[in-house]
Amino acid sequence: MDNFTFYSPTYFVFGKETENQTGQLVKKYGGHKVMLHYGGGSVKRSGLLDRVKASLDAEGIEYVELGGVEANPKSGLVYEGIEMARKENVDFMLPLGGGSVIDSAKAIALGVPYDGDFWDFYTGKAVEEALPVGTIVTLAASGSEASTDTVVTHEDGMYKRCADGDILRPKFSIMNPELTTTLPPYQTASGITDIIAHCMERYFSKTPDVELTDRMLEGVMLCMIKEGRRAMNDPANYEARANIMWAATIAHNNITGTGRAQDWGTHHMENELSSTYGCSHGAGLAILFPSWMKYAMKEDVMRFAQFAVRVWGCEMDFQNPEKTALEGIERYQAFIKEIGMPTTISEIGGKEEDVPKLADSMFHGAPDHGNFVKLTKEIAMEIYRMAL
Amino acid sequence: MDNFTFYSPTYFVFGKETENQTGQLVKKYGGHKVMLHYGGGSVKRSGLLDRVKASLDAEGIEYVELGGVEANPKSGLVYEGIEMARKENVDFMLPLGGGSVIDSAKAIALGVPYDGDFWDFYTGKAVEEALPVGTIVTLAASGSEASTDTVVTHEDGMYKRCADGDILRPKFSIMNPELTTTLPPYQTASGITDIIAHCMERYFSKTPDVELTDRMLEGVMLCMIKEGRRAMNDPANYEARANIMWAATIAHNNITGTGRAQDWGTHHMENELSSTYGCSHGAGLAILFPSWMKYAMKEDVMRFAQFAVRVWGCEMDFQNPEKTALEGIERYQAFIKEIGMPTTISEIGGKEEDVPKLADSMFHGAPDHGNFVKLTKEIAMEIYRMAL
Repeated sequence: MDNFTFYSPTYFVFGKETENQTGQLVKKYGGHKVMLHYGGGSVKRSGLLDRVKASLDAEGIEYVELGGVEANPKSGLVYEGIEMARKENVDFMLPLGGGSVIDSAKAIALGVPYDGDFWDFYTGKAVEEALPVGTIVTLAASGSEASTDTVVTHEDGMYKRCADGDILRPKFSIMNPELTTTLPPYQTASGITDIIAHCMERYFSKTPDVELTDRMLEGVMLCMIKEGRRAMNDPANYEARANIMWAATIAHNNITGTGRAQDWGTHHMENELSSTYGCSHGAGLAILFPSWMKYAMKEDVMRFAQFAVRVWGCEMDFQNPEKTALEGIERYQAFIKEIGMPTTISEIGGKEEDVPKLADSMFHGAPDHGNFVKLTKEIAMEIYRMAL
Repeated sequence: MDNFTFYSPTYFVFGKETENQTGQLVKKYGGHKVMLHYGGGSVKRSGLLDRVKASLDAEGIEYVELGGVEANPKSGLVYEGIEMARKENVDFMLPLGGGSVIDSAKAIALGVPYDGDFWDFYTGKAVEEALPVGTIVTLAASGSEASTDTVVTHEDGMYKRCADGDILRPKFSIMNPELTTTLPPYQTASGITDIIAHCMERYFSKTPDVELTDRMLEGVMLCMIKEGRRAMNDPANYEARANIMWAATIAHNNITGTGRAQDWGTHHMENELSSTYGCSHGAGLAILFPSWMKYAMKEDVMRFAQFAVRVWGCEMDFQNPEKTALEGIERYQAFIKEIGMPTTISEIGGKEEDVPKLADSMFHGAPDHGNFVKLTKEIAMEIYRMAL
């Protein structure tokens, strides 16, 4: 196990009707004027926005609103948000949504106190200061409600990049699984895929002797297989939604990633698919992971056999561990197909001739990708081609 | 899954040589004068105390020392510590040790800013204020380095009681597994038993649909079986010690207990054994848990069958789940026996005629015990007798 530090000071308020505590929580964490940040109209139609406003009103907290966040959030709205927040003296960011909305809010939080271009933080500048953020989660997937990171796409070149720092952990996160019971199946499935992917990026590690986090990651994935199926078959099932929502946090607040090298190559490759073809992040991961795994398994067949046996219930073939490893990958792929995810780049409109462009964009100003497999541009192209 | 809140703001610094960061961490968290609190001479013999002092000196942080904490820490030293801390203007508690030392430090931290008797917090007074605490862990067991609670024994009656509150979460915890490689086997085994017990107190729950935390708890227990054996057979094995040390935290910072009712009846029964017979807390749990489980399994046989199959690798007997459940209990008991723990009250010097006194003391001013099984005095006596 590697040396590590772990710090997760977010206050989680989980369960039914918890959004009614928003006002008290903003007050507790020192907010006076918040920016309500959200996507399209679903937070209005569901009545969530009104309930949150009522809760803020009850505590005398002022607010401004900025909607319009798209999936794979863009820099344009971030610039607009920074300007609005400064003009309106916003001192607290309050995203209502999934990872895209939360990440857009974190980007605005970074930009407000900074003299330069917020994009600097997405191209390597150290994250040190930001407005406080509290989240109201409406989609179980990204784990951004608990994480140190934010992913935004710059419209100048459509580069999708990440900024990271402890200060970006939300002060509080309100997590009401009821808010996710009306999600369309594609979004639910994208979330399930993303959560499992966050586990796999940590699981495929060459750090030896990480039995504790191995077992925890396997536990989260086993839970996701059971509860993911249940939510797909019975979308209104609160209990399935609750397990999935908390799993999203556990999968990505890094408690399961402590003390081990992590990969993240597939996430970086995926960024190019969702920013190029507009698919969901989960769908892009669903497409790429089986190919990445087939490429990566030669690095450590026994790790993939362990994954196959412990997570996917495969029988270990002691004479032929490769066979077991491959069976695990196949069962994973069958599962994501079963829940309705695409499994090839062609399905989202990609073609073989796009491959060099995807790889070029991925390596633009960013030379390092992956750890379990160190990706070169050639390897990335090979994996993209395997996924066509 | 039940509604819950979860807040764990401790900064964990984990790995080799991390005690050399003590001074910087105390400074970061605003300490100017610390009380170094410890047990016997092992922190001196190992050189740990000197290294920590050097680290404090380097940052210009003053300190006073109070050693002498015993296993099952007593009120007498707490009163002494409160007086010393006030006289010396201590503003930060720095325990070096295991759960006993940390819990004694938390008690002093509670007492210093409080006008009345610190024991009030152990008999129901709400915990609201305390000196900040940072820990340097030398024994993987209690999870007190991450928890909200402290257990102390009052010498007037030898009542062993618990105080609890978010403010008691340490500001930081320094966790160097190297410090645990020289522990005597009995202490190592007591720690392993305690960690597994913290999982079981959460695992045996009647809250339905808690698949995520079930899987996480099973994962921690599976890890403990593997790494516990490894540490017993090869005490100097850093990797085994590292997995166990971090498992102790995960088992008791309550991330694995979120959204579910928990039991804790066996812990309350155990308090009477360790305070009466002076055994380790882990030894007392090793003695009581199999009897509690045999009594409790009739409440929900399938939960015990799940425990047997998923944690202890038993084959499910679909015609006779009771048989599977019982086999799981037997495998647990065989494991704790294998690592050298006692399994009967007789082995630690108890007799049948002590049973009413144990139960009387347990219920003295404390009527509620257990949740999965609500304990009455009669049931507690029955379980004590089963463990004779």
